[in-house]
Amino acid sequence: MRKQTLEGRAAAVNRGRDGERLAPLELAAWRGMLRAHADVVRRLDADLRARHGLSLTDYEALMLVGDAPRHRMRVSELGSATLLSVSGASRMVDRLAREGLVERAACEEDGRGAEVVLTAAGRERLRDARAAHLRGVRAAFLSRFDDDELAAMAAMWERLGEPGGR
Amino acid sequence: MRKQTLEGRAAAVNRGRDGERLAPLELAAWRGMLRAHADVVRRLDADLRARHGLSLTDYEALMLVGDAPRHRMRVSELGSATLLSVSGASRMVDRLAREGLVERAACEEDGRGAEVVLTAAGRERLRDARAAHLRGVRAAFLSRFDDDELAAMAAMWERLGEPGGR
Repeated sequence: MRKQTLEGRAAAVNRGRDGERLAPLELAAWRGMLRAHADVVRRLDADLRARHGLSLTDYEALMLVGDAPRHRMRVSELGSATLLSVSGASRMVDRLAREGLVERAACEEDGRGAEVVLTAAGRERLRDARAAHLRGVRAAFLSRFDDDELAAMAAMWERLGEPGGR
Repeated sequence: MRKQTLEGRAAAVNRGRDGERLAPLELAAWRGMLRAHADVVRRLDADLRARHGLSLTDYEALMLVGDAPRHRMRVSELGSATLLSVSGASRMVDRLAREGLVERAACEEDGRGAEVVLTAAGRERLRDARAAHLRGVRAAFLSRFDDDELAAMAAMWERLGEPGGR
């Protein structure tokens, strides 16, 4: 019984009740993630824009298309992978096409719908940007943690992706 | 010597060299965070839009102004706190003002520059949205982890915020 009471008290200190303001531990974990994500993404985005003329989302799109089977991907797939709406993905593809980095092609499978393929210039831009970007990801994020910490973090992200949670 | 060799080998397995593709552990920690952040934020944003007519950024803006000293904040401060550009923050404030949730007021301190204050309707909308939003944050994120995990995560975010890292 005593144990239950102590646990109940600890829970009350570390966690607010449902719908109540966040307790300090909750704030530090949740807002800490929002802040860490925003800081790292902003830095990587600024580096890519300054050095390679690409936003982080542009880079992710080139990377996804470049790594896809047959180096091509449907616009709709690209949208969901880059977390853009269909219209947002379509606008991004139009812009990257104007810059000569991608081309739209008819879908090979069913002849309908548009696929995106990298041009030679797109492959080159991706190759140039990739090494610098990955150096940035390691400098801004991965190098700050040891292997055990990365593994613990990876396990937490994997659990979040499971339906229903723990 | 043997230990060093083993550590060297472990590092080679868990981490790619600088500029090289990410090793599986690195991918799971880094892309896992991008995915977890995107999934949780997208769900919370959709809930707020559907139930309270606010984007997650609108909600954060109302919350920041409501919690600020004297319940008012400069537009520029609000921009940096919500990670928007100055022009982006200004457009958001204009929109929230058209919806009657905030008002622009002359800055009390120096009479120049614009501050944002919540209207009565803004305070009410924030109060209605807050409990539901915090329930969502707990359901989608905080409830998936025990207190030790939240503390470990919070410590990692805090370290990321320090200059120079570990």
